[in-house]
Amino acid sequence: MPDTDARITAVDTYDIRFPTSRELAGSDAMNPDPDYSAAYVVLRTDEAQGADGHGFAFTIGRGNEVQVAAIHALGHHVVGRSVAALCADPGALYRDLTGDSQLRWLGPEKGVLHMAVGAVVNAVWDLAARRAGKPLWKLLADAEPEWLVRQADLRYLTDALTPQRALELLRRGRDGADGRAARLLATGFPAYTTSPGWLGYDDDKLTRLAREAVADGFTQIKLKVGADLADDIRRCRAARAAIGPGVKLAIDANQRWEVAEAVRWTRALAEFGPYWIEEPTSPDDILGHAAIRRAVAPVKVATGEHAANRVVFKQLLQAGAVDVVQLDAARVGGVNENLAILLLAAEFGVPVCPHAGGVGLCELVQHLAMFDYVALAGTTEDRAIEYVDHLHDHFLDPVVIRAGRYAAPTAPGFSAALRPESVARYTYPGGTFWAADLDPTGGRTA
Amino acid sequence: MPDTDARITAVDTYDIRFPTSRELAGSDAMNPDPDYSAAYVVLRTDEAQGADGHGFAFTIGRGNEVQVAAIHALGHHVVGRSVAALCADPGALYRDLTGDSQLRWLGPEKGVLHMAVGAVVNAVWDLAARRAGKPLWKLLADAEPEWLVRQADLRYLTDALTPQRALELLRRGRDGADGRAARLLATGFPAYTTSPGWLGYDDDKLTRLAREAVADGFTQIKLKVGADLADDIRRCRAARAAIGPGVKLAIDANQRWEVAEAVRWTRALAEFGPYWIEEPTSPDDILGHAAIRRAVAPVKVATGEHAANRVVFKQLLQAGAVDVVQLDAARVGGVNENLAILLLAAEFGVPVCPHAGGVGLCELVQHLAMFDYVALAGTTEDRAIEYVDHLHDHFLDPVVIRAGRYAAPTAPGFSAALRPESVARYTYPGGTFWAADLDPTGGRTA
Repeated sequence: MPDTDARITAVDTYDIRFPTSRELAGSDAMNPDPDYSAAYVVLRTDEAQGADGHGFAFTIGRGNEVQVAAIHALGHHVVGRSVAALCADPGALYRDLTGDSQLRWLGPEKGVLHMAVGAVVNAVWDLAARRAGKPLWKLLADAEPEWLVRQADLRYLTDALTPQRALELLRRGRDGADGRAARLLATGFPAYTTSPGWLGYDDDKLTRLAREAVADGFTQIKLKVGADLADDIRRCRAARAAIGPGVKLAIDANQRWEVAEAVRWTRALAEFGPYWIEEPTSPDDILGHAAIRRAVAPVKVATGEHAANRVVFKQLLQAGAVDVVQLDAARVGGVNENLAILLLAAEFGVPVCPHAGGVGLCELVQHLAMFDYVALAGTTEDRAIEYVDHLHDHFLDPVVIRAGRYAAPTAPGFSAALRPESVARYTYPGGTFWAADLDPTGGRTA
Repeated sequence: MPDTDARITAVDTYDIRFPTSRELAGSDAMNPDPDYSAAYVVLRTDEAQGADGHGFAFTIGRGNEVQVAAIHALGHHVVGRSVAALCADPGALYRDLTGDSQLRWLGPEKGVLHMAVGAVVNAVWDLAARRAGKPLWKLLADAEPEWLVRQADLRYLTDALTPQRALELLRRGRDGADGRAARLLATGFPAYTTSPGWLGYDDDKLTRLAREAVADGFTQIKLKVGADLADDIRRCRAARAAIGPGVKLAIDANQRWEVAEAVRWTRALAEFGPYWIEEPTSPDDILGHAAIRRAVAPVKVATGEHAANRVVFKQLLQAGAVDVVQLDAARVGGVNENLAILLLAAEFGVPVCPHAGGVGLCELVQHLAMFDYVALAGTTEDRAIEYVDHLHDHFLDPVVIRAGRYAAPTAPGFSAALRPESVARYTYPGGTFWAADLDPTGGRTA
């Protein structure tokens, strides 16, 4: 039975880095050598046998210590709070964190500080779901629409989505939710895979992995493009030959292009039938995405993994700049802001295909997509969650993929907890892996 | 004679905080109690009797340590570089800093990491101007247009401004530049003052300071609004009565409103003839600003101090969302990005009235506005630099205001260097002021 007097006693932070740059997994036109990293946060409580709350911001290596420092700067808002009150209303903490006027200046609502807010807020949702004994998607799907509207951050959105309209969307989403939850548990949620398409892979590896993806049941793969057009033509041709005409081929430029260049390059790849072009230019360029979308149709435009906050998503939708909303679980201010982004997408009738990969982004984002299916959008049509097959073993409750679909998680929480042995090994620079790697003697004893 | 072999030997960082919250100077509808702070950086060299390079990011208190950590994370790009090469081409370092793919993830190009880039890049420009023996505005005004175009960051802007067009604007700006430089040195650049209008001031203080501003020669003042409409009506009435009909009255909501609320509130204050409404809503809401501007004309719309980067400014101009571009010297990636923003404003024919105040923002931004006047826009019409009369004494080369105008700085550099005694006193938490203030014994000896 939960202790109603329990308090948060500590906000512990960890700088976790995985040496992924050594394998070129994750390489794209803008990010040649990422070391996938997590600025990891654990909320400790004084509840006997009580759960901790886990969350993280995802980074790609250098600067993860800055991200950790930002999470640390938020700690005073959390320590000492009532666990029961926090879990009953995560939005109260969310508003305190985003409303801290001095810290707000460092964004506002963008970049390092905002990702830190997301890490802490998501840790609270993890804690709340553990205490409720439910996976987060189910906690959200079971929640009262009135409560969800209060949790969603609708500030600066009311010209596109009023609280009253959000409530209508959530009430509509409840129709048939029980049946969809049962189907989700039985058959999972569609996935697509980026694993074949990293820019650092040669054509043989790309072809082999693309064939394996289709054999594994995926109906969409994604290729990184944007470094060299001749290479991209060759790689898209190889990928299309490997997967055949019936499987979707998405392409991803990772912000590489100017607006006109994005149009030219995408058109040059059109013969291979790309399903969408992802991040064609600066993630801040709403009007640029709108111009690209008008010019490259019927190729769809997808973006969102680097959209700083809900106000950017609002405008992408208002401007008709996107066909696919790629929300990210760890870039914006956590579940409270992502509820608003899901509501915006529902209001505009645009499908959400979340960004994942990295460290633990698959683990987090599946909960948001599954809530959206069960209790908001009500469909998986034109929807799929990105899947990348690395670093899952470091999580206590890793994602499970069967026949190209995410199995619905059933363990309580937000699937955000890292294995203690992974924390011990990959903490930077003092964990056992990095201490040996950084040791000038090469780890040899003197 | 400069040492052509000199290198950068250190990137020293300082967490400087001034206890401004104790006086309510700087209070507005979103920022009730700022402690104006600087994440201050000094580039050291091994040049005998050589100058250091000074720069900073401005914050308002808590989190300044995160900003310092971000500057520290950039240091490895700078240490060991040739001082002569760095000063001959600051853009090369700018591209290395913004192109560090791992650090870029933390923005991209926004928030804490991007402000850190700005601090370091501005320190390089300070160093370059000191070595050239010129104030920065003059170094820029004397530079070849071809070189300036290469320094300006035009990435993601070419749908609005090509390098060729930027070159034309800079060449056009040179016509008559010598005469304008002479006039600038003789008569300075127009200023407006925010000092009377802080939200924490009572009506008597507001009225007294507004009258003093007019007596001091200012032709525009600014009032903070947005917390309470009845208060704002009373305060605007008092301010208009104090300054008379011929002085401009700007109002500033500091992002307080939803789009529809901004329209209603601004219209409710229209009888007092506001010149512009500043930051009516989220600084990320380009389309929102455009809607507000259409609805509140002839009141102008001004924004920019929290615009994350040049891509946001591009869209504000493309969307017809602003009448006044309020660039900030320390929010974006330094001089290289601000050159692009000045060029965009010139291309769209929109005046630049820089944001200032805080710590040292007046000192920095005067150089950009004066370059714009002398060698780009070519006019001071509809242009004024914000002025706030606090914290200047902490700078070695503080701004000088005469008859409501900024006197052109003549000392070499970017006016960014703090007095050593101010650094010693206000370094947080170890400086003499904070050590005594934070001492639980109240500074009494045991």
